[in-house]
Amino acid sequence: MSTFEIRPIGKVSSNLKTLDAAPRQADEGAPEAWLVFEPEAVEGLRSIRPGDELVLITWLDRARRDVLSVHPRGDVARAPEGVFSTRSPHRPNPLGLHDVKVTAIEGGRVRVRGLEAIDGTPIVDLKPVLSPDIAHR
Amino acid sequence: MSTFEIRPIGKVSSNLKTLDAAPRQADEGAPEAWLVFEPEAVEGLRSIRPGDELVLITWLDRARRDVLSVHPRGDVARAPEGVFSTRSPHRPNPLGLHDVKVTAIEGGRVRVRGLEAIDGTPIVDLKPVLSPDIAHR
Repeated sequence: MSTFEIRPIGKVSSNLKTLDAAPRQADEGAPEAWLVFEPEAVEGLRSIRPGDELVLITWLDRARRDVLSVHPRGDVARAPEGVFSTRSPHRPNPLGLHDVKVTAIEGGRVRVRGLEAIDGTPIVDLKPVLSPDIAHR
Repeated sequence: MSTFEIRPIGKVSSNLKTLDAAPRQADEGAPEAWLVFEPEAVEGLRSIRPGDELVLITWLDRARRDVLSVHPRGDVARAPEGVFSTRSPHRPNPLGLHDVKVTAIEGGRVRVRGLEAIDGTPIVDLKPVLSPDIAHR
C-alpha cells in the first residue's frame, strides 16, 4: 500500500520536558503550553480565537511503531490489549489526539490549556471540536 | 523540520464510491462501511467489540495539501476561513477524524456505522473515544 509523508506544521513548546514528567491524559495535571507554528502554516490559523475548543493532532516521535499489544497504562500485571483499543503512544502510526482550549494567540503561536504532550512534539494538524454548529458551518 | 512516514494499516470499503456521493459530515446520511485491515495490523484489533465507540483516523488521499484558507462548506459567497478552524479535507496534512460505532467484527474486518469517508480511503489509526473510563484504564 502507498505510504504518505507527514510534514509537521509546528511544534509544542511546553514545560513538560521529559516523558516521565508527562501525565498519561490531559485531565491528570497537564499544563498550559504554546503551539508554535511554522511561518508557512500561519495563514491557516487566522480564524482561531481565544475560547475555541480544538483537536490537536501530534506525531509522537518518541513512540515505538512495532507494537500491537500493550499492557493498559503500562501495568504488566494487567492483561495485554490490542493497541487500537487504547490511547497508548506506541502504535503503527503514532498520532496523538489532544482536546485543547485556546487561551491566547500571538502571531504564529497559540496558547492552549490541558496539553499532555512534551516539549518539541511535532504538530501535524489542528481541527475544531465537531459540534453541530461547526459541522454545518 | 523532519518529516515522517505514514504507513496505512488498512482501507475503507464503502458503497460511497465518489467524493460527490459523500456527505460532508457523518450525521448527514453516512452509511455503514467495512474497515479492512492489513494482515500485519490485525493483532492490534483483538480487544475491539461490537458497540465500541472509536475515533478512526484516515488519510484523505484526494485532498489538496497546499490550501490554508477555505470557503465554509465550499460556499464561495461566504468569507474564507483558516483551514485549522474547519473540517475541510484540504489542509497541509489531510488527516480525517471520524467518530464511528462498531457493529460487527469478522477477522481483520471491522464494520462501523456513520462513516462519511469514500471507498478506498487509507486507514491510519483507530483509537477509543476518550471517556474517563478509557482514559484511566
